Amino acid sequence: MFKLDARLAADTHWVGDLPLCHVLLMNDSQFPWLILVPRIADVTEVFELPEEQQQQLLNESMLVSKALKNQTQCDKINIGAIGNVVSQLHIHHVARFKDDVAWPKPVWGAQPAVAYTQPQSEALISTYRQLLAL
Amino acid sequence: MFKLDARLAADTHWVGDLPLCHVLLMNDSQFPWLILVPRIADVTEVFELPEEQQQQLLNESMLVSKALKNQTQCDKINIGAIGNVVSQLHIHHVARFKDDVAWPKPVWGAQPAVAYTQPQSEALISTYRQLLAL
Repeated sequence: MFKLDARLAADTHWVGDLPLCHVLLMNDSQFPWLILVPRIADVTEVFELPEEQQQQLLNESMLVSKALKNQTQCDKINIGAIGNVVSQLHIHHVARFKDDVAWPKPVWGAQPAVAYTQPQSEALISTYRQLLAL
Repeated sequence: MFKLDARLAADTHWVGDLPLCHVLLMNDSQFPWLILVPRIADVTEVFELPEEQQQQLLNESMLVSKALKNQTQCDKINIGAIGNVVSQLHIHHVARFKDDVAWPKPVWGAQPAVAYTQPQSEALISTYRQLLAL
């Protein structure tokens, strides 16, 4: 049975559920950053999903990418399926700006996170729920 | 008209062409690392592709991921669409090992590349052409 990885749960806020994936807001105020986690047990690689679920993951990834782009008017969307630390399949979507603290490097494994305040995270969760129709 | 970005061309060896993408071997002997570049002009984000091409990109990404996994028996495949330095859309596929020089961090923007010797790169190109039926 699927259970969200404890590290992912600790590092994020739950935004809502798309048909396949949990949508999570990374608790790092330095970057607009949403994570998709397919609610499928024991999967670590995208190619392990059946083809239908791969396509659904692609659809949800594009939905989230466009929501981030439209909301933030960022310079670039970074998408990553890495999973070296947390093996449960999860796909990062990060809105990047030429003046953010990590540019042009990727955000993963670099600077420590700066948590949102509760009002900040609540406002963002509400915004992304509206944008993603959750 | 599509033209491969000069930086991508300089950092890689050409392996072959799938229906949508160039397949390139990153010239870094520290990691088995293939890059897909859709042969479409002026695209920087996956969501800018028409849906049919998104699906084809997914198919080719899965083909390359499985070839890397089968060939290397790696611990994890890392997939990334970043593009902060080279904006032309390109998708990294990196076979990672728990004892590689960057583990568990991502490979991007970290340690400098260590080029293959010509015999090494020729052997790998030949291997991946066979695995990908190129």
